[in-house]
Amino acid sequence: MSTASIQNVEVCLPDGTKQKHPGDATPMDVARGISEGLARAVVAAEVEGKIVDSFRPLGELANEDGSVPLKLLTNRDASALDVLRHSAAHVMARAIMRVYDGVSLAFGPTTSGGFYYDFDLSEKISEDDFPKIEAEIKKIIKAKEPFERFVLDRDEARKLCDDLNQDLKVEHIDTGLGDQPTVSFYRQGEFVDLCRGPHIPHAGMIKAIKLLSVAGAYWKGDASGRQLQRVYGTAFFDKKELAAYLEQLEEARRRDHRVLGKQHGLFAINPEVGQGLCLWLPKGARVRVALEDFLRKELLSRGYDPVYSPHIGRVELYETSGHFPYYRDSQFAPLFGSEVGGLLDAWNTRLGEGNLSSDDEDKLIAAAEVFGVKLNDYKPSASVEAKQKALHDWQLVNERYLLKPMNCPHHCQIFAAEPRSYRQLPLRLFEFGTVYRHEQTGELNGMMRVRGLTQDDAHIFCTPEQVEEEFRATIELTQFVLQSVGLNDYRVQLSLRDPDSSKYVGSEENWDHAEGALRGVLQHSGMEFNEEPGEAAFYGPKADFMVRDCIGRSWQLGTVQLDYNLPQRFKLQYKGNDNSTHQPVMIHRAPFGSLERFTGMLIEHFAGAFPMWLAPEQIRVLPLSDKSLDYAVAVAKQLDEAGLKVTVDSSDGKVQAKIRNAQLDLVNYMAVVGPKEAEMGHLALRDRIDGDLGAMPVAEAIARLTDEVKNRTVRQAVKSSAVSIAESSETSHEY
Amino acid sequence: MSTASIQNVEVCLPDGTKQKHPGDATPMDVARGISEGLARAVVAAEVEGKIVDSFRPLGELANEDGSVPLKLLTNRDASALDVLRHSAAHVMARAIMRVYDGVSLAFGPTTSGGFYYDFDLSEKISEDDFPKIEAEIKKIIKAKEPFERFVLDRDEARKLCDDLNQDLKVEHIDTGLGDQPTVSFYRQGEFVDLCRGPHIPHAGMIKAIKLLSVAGAYWKGDASGRQLQRVYGTAFFDKKELAAYLEQLEEARRRDHRVLGKQHGLFAINPEVGQGLCLWLPKGARVRVALEDFLRKELLSRGYDPVYSPHIGRVELYETSGHFPYYRDSQFAPLFGSEVGGLLDAWNTRLGEGNLSSDDEDKLIAAAEVFGVKLNDYKPSASVEAKQKALHDWQLVNERYLLKPMNCPHHCQIFAAEPRSYRQLPLRLFEFGTVYRHEQTGELNGMMRVRGLTQDDAHIFCTPEQVEEEFRATIELTQFVLQSVGLNDYRVQLSLRDPDSSKYVGSEENWDHAEGALRGVLQHSGMEFNEEPGEAAFYGPKADFMVRDCIGRSWQLGTVQLDYNLPQRFKLQYKGNDNSTHQPVMIHRAPFGSLERFTGMLIEHFAGAFPMWLAPEQIRVLPLSDKSLDYAVAVAKQLDEAGLKVTVDSSDGKVQAKIRNAQLDLVNYMAVVGPKEAEMGHLALRDRIDGDLGAMPVAEAIARLTDEVKNRTVRQAVKSSAVSIAESSETSHEY
Repeated sequence: MSTASIQNVEVCLPDGTKQKHPGDATPMDVARGISEGLARAVVAAEVEGKIVDSFRPLGELANEDGSVPLKLLTNRDASALDVLRHSAAHVMARAIMRVYDGVSLAFGPTTSGGFYYDFDLSEKISEDDFPKIEAEIKKIIKAKEPFERFVLDRDEARKLCDDLNQDLKVEHIDTGLGDQPTVSFYRQGEFVDLCRGPHIPHAGMIKAIKLLSVAGAYWKGDASGRQLQRVYGTAFFDKKELAAYLEQLEEARRRDHRVLGKQHGLFAINPEVGQGLCLWLPKGARVRVALEDFLRKELLSRGYDPVYSPHIGRVELYETSGHFPYYRDSQFAPLFGSEVGGLLDAWNTRLGEGNLSSDDEDKLIAAAEVFGVKLNDYKPSASVEAKQKALHDWQLVNERYLLKPMNCPHHCQIFAAEPRSYRQLPLRLFEFGTVYRHEQTGELNGMMRVRGLTQDDAHIFCTPEQVEEEFRATIELTQFVLQSVGLNDYRVQLSLRDPDSSKYVGSEENWDHAEGALRGVLQHSGMEFNEEPGEAAFYGPKADFMVRDCIGRSWQLGTVQLDYNLPQRFKLQYKGNDNSTHQPVMIHRAPFGSLERFTGMLIEHFAGAFPMWLAPEQIRVLPLSDKSLDYAVAVAKQLDEAGLKVTVDSSDGKVQAKIRNAQLDLVNYMAVVGPKEAEMGHLALRDRIDGDLGAMPVAEAIARLTDEVKNRTVRQAVKSSAVSIAESSETSHEY
Repeated sequence: MSTASIQNVEVCLPDGTKQKHPGDATPMDVARGISEGLARAVVAAEVEGKIVDSFRPLGELANEDGSVPLKLLTNRDASALDVLRHSAAHVMARAIMRVYDGVSLAFGPTTSGGFYYDFDLSEKISEDDFPKIEAEIKKIIKAKEPFERFVLDRDEARKLCDDLNQDLKVEHIDTGLGDQPTVSFYRQGEFVDLCRGPHIPHAGMIKAIKLLSVAGAYWKGDASGRQLQRVYGTAFFDKKELAAYLEQLEEARRRDHRVLGKQHGLFAINPEVGQGLCLWLPKGARVRVALEDFLRKELLSRGYDPVYSPHIGRVELYETSGHFPYYRDSQFAPLFGSEVGGLLDAWNTRLGEGNLSSDDEDKLIAAAEVFGVKLNDYKPSASVEAKQKALHDWQLVNERYLLKPMNCPHHCQIFAAEPRSYRQLPLRLFEFGTVYRHEQTGELNGMMRVRGLTQDDAHIFCTPEQVEEEFRATIELTQFVLQSVGLNDYRVQLSLRDPDSSKYVGSEENWDHAEGALRGVLQHSGMEFNEEPGEAAFYGPKADFMVRDCIGRSWQLGTVQLDYNLPQRFKLQYKGNDNSTHQPVMIHRAPFGSLERFTGMLIEHFAGAFPMWLAPEQIRVLPLSDKSLDYAVAVAKQLDEAGLKVTVDSSDGKVQAKIRNAQLDLVNYMAVVGPKEAEMGHLALRDRIDGDLGAMPVAEAIARLTDEVKNRTVRQAVKSSAVSIAESSETSHEY
């Protein structure tokens, strides 16, 4: 794309229409040429996948032959919302500079749910000031001032920012732009900001905007750098969408699994045990037991083999797999047989990075000797490699372990534990494997983002010919699992390789075959799915389930990933029916993802009220008074023997209070019993959702409830009509 | 007991008889006075619990008033065997010194199954030389030479050992005897050894002796010390007993779980993953799943609550519990947020031990600074406490974790996660919790002694009044569990406090109450049990199940331990019905002990052939030929749907070969199917133990097999008649 203006351009619209325009005409001019209505609706434009201002001269956007493949974006295009929100961030920053003095601007990007802007100022921005700021925003929007773009070379840009007293922008120009010769700015009235854009034509397009919260942040995310204040907000093209989103946020707050988890005794995170480390309390653990039992039975009947592996492994194992040192930043530090092993490890790393002076080396040698560590062959004059080898040799003898960040290397070792024949394939090894990752403290979030997570992990080792059937079966299993908890609204994202890149492991032929097979399976399944070329992991294509919960939020849950890399690194092989050795394909898959995240999601999806088959307390027996306590206990015994999770409320209160407590505790059913019921061998059944169901023989109630458990009936989660805007996602752990 | 000779002594025999003897008479003289037969049978004597030579002068054994409470020991007394074996070790050492040159003697103690002696010599002792050594032993025994005892003061003793060229003995006299003024020696012909004794009267008493193996050892167990050669042997009073023991050893070898584990794909230990870390292969994992499922269901029906806790915890958690640094030698080193955390930790320890020079300190400060670690408040001139605090403060901020060596601290935190009332007690929290302990490499043994073990752990929090009933229920549960795997031969060891010691935590009243309650429960149960005063842990009394397997070996399995300590350290409390707060009692219990050890023991007990309910492959369908393969698959499907673990042998071979393979693979049942069976809807059932059971409808076979599973029938383990001599025990982990 040429940046120089061109005399005349030829605009090509998506319907194939071609139009000649002068180089200084804009996409907005093109829109106006079609209709005034379209011009009013245009938010931005798209040229060969890039979103641009509707007010950019077409000449700047043209290819070298003068052509401009142009798409006009209105509020009906998904990417337009991002443009609107980024402009809203500018408007908010402008308003804040009117309300507070000495504001130094950092950056103001969009998020999945809105936008934020980071500021440095001495005064503390208070949420109490939001009305004042929003009033200024209203004024700015009402004025409908246009956004204007201009480009300066770096010296001019630096001078402008300096004149504007924007020291963070000056620093960014000095250190954050590489060799970029020019930078763009956007002006809106008195507000000028260094910015890549693009923006909406004028502020009047922001029909709905709301400030949400203030939080702390760091300049460029560096915790040792300047502390900033971050103001979050959101914006929409439409007031109704904003209202729906705020309602969704409010609903999400009501369903917050951290609050419900505490309130209902599901899980606890305790600073004495450690941040990000879940203690599953009895009720939460019962939910997990039900999930694990369900999936284990399913897997056993689907030809999987159980395995168990330890939670640590020698560092060498992860060097073989390539997970160490590559992912070391997101792992717990290695665990050493010797206390000073870590010193040697850090030393080794610094040597490799070339930033240890010989003076530093002397200090380290002296310190190691204090603990009796003699490093044979470590000569300060030797090569870095020789020195690293000396450190490594010492560590080898003294054993280094890693808290396992994933289960695959262990399962590869189980595959390799005996000679394998094609007759044994596919070999499907499963384990509820708890892995540990050292997520940043700021990223931790209840059960959703933790440092110890239990994956419902399995690795399928198969021949290339078996990939299609195994993938089909895995997709089908994942659908079955999601359906069992009533999650029926999902699509699959199929991540394929970038055909222009050479970063991939495995033969082209295998990839072609596998991608074709995966696509075929998804097409045949009739499921909604989309392909994302270039999004595959370097080791193989993958499919992720994007699941929408009942309040419209989207979650990345189950995953299926092909892997050509680990079988190669671990030199796995099997004897084919041609009697020669072959390398198996490996499939990683986890329908839940992790039990922590899945349970956290279920807590929010069901607002804590689990369906019968998962509920930690399925029924509570409520005696009318102490006189009926014996009968209540006898009824509870029958329910318990039928496999139901039952308790008895033996407290002193009135039955109305007992019912209220059971409702508050989200118990699925209540069995009220008094002298009449005792005489008849009955119980009066009460459904938390539908209320009184009348008196019936105990056996009848048991049949009804056990059926509900057996059928895994899901009837509690109320589907919300909230628009689906916010996406909640976890960094996808590609391993 | 006076060591000086006394003119006359009064011997008191167990039957109350009193006899006057001169001070230089011996226990042997006393025996001879009773009968020559008794004199021939006497092995040693016992005086007030101490075993002594039968040839010691009574004057040396007398109390100050001249009395000698004497018991004569013959081969019918359990402790006599130890005396015999220690003498056998001397005889073996003597023979070895005749066969090899330049033998330096270390020590030669007895073991539970025999004895060993450690030697330093340049030549390698070979098992091929055993016949030669045993021939010398025979000669020595035949000569019936007496053992003679004499006492020297240390200087004389040193000189004697020096003259004998026994440098290790010299070293021991110099450094290993504290302030002991004299030492005893035993002479037998040309063989003289520094030794505490006691010994048998003469070598002729050794009726049966056998050398078993040679292994490496270290002088005084110190891996950095001199390397020695250890020769193992065993000895008995009777040839039949030796034969039975050797048969038991042979049987144990045939049942070795390490060999069977590999052969049948049960588990693997892989140096790449790490020593002592089990990989449960599919078949072993199926056994574990069956054990876990069984126990989980049992516990849920007995009012236990499931929980899950992470495999790490902050070091501070274990400081609170007292497990760190107390047990740090048997734990993996702490895991640090920072790589150099270990350095600080080791530094802290050395400071506390007082062995860091200020020069060392300077070196460590310099090394820490290389990695940017600034220790505020660490002044070389400050007090040790202030310096340790500076190190600790730094670590606090930088997070230290421990791979959990036990689950109790986590369960205490779960108890403390919400306010507790007496109404919630007893609260029984259970978890299959994997813990990690850094056992010495030399101690590791298959699944029996590992570094990662999964305890079937539970902690019961109850009121002091509930202790008795909870203990009763726990004992009953353990009995039920053992019976379910057909282990019906056991006794309970009840460890009580030493009434003279003050090391115990918890009030005297609580201990009295608890010990009384525990004794009462065991008495009432009718089980065999013995009391061991002084063997209780400092935190409470405990009961251990000592189980005998089918070849007569004894295993310490299930344990129940009361704990007054952790509730105090964690400040646990509940509100009583008197509305004031109380401290609960905690009970640790694990019927299996650990899944690794229990499964390893079961492999050996059943020689790999598990009873139906635990078997990884319960039935294999064997088609007569390819033509019956479809029917075989259809039959397998029916069996699978009935919940049976079934496979199909689709190989090409003849049915005889298939049967042989299934027998070798220890499959419990075989279903042979051919055209005739297919026509009738039958299968020909074959029992691995009883052979052909004839053709029957598939449904009939299913009913028979599922009944066997449901009833947990155990019929495979053949009770051996072998004498029970060897005891296998693991260091009991008191925590």
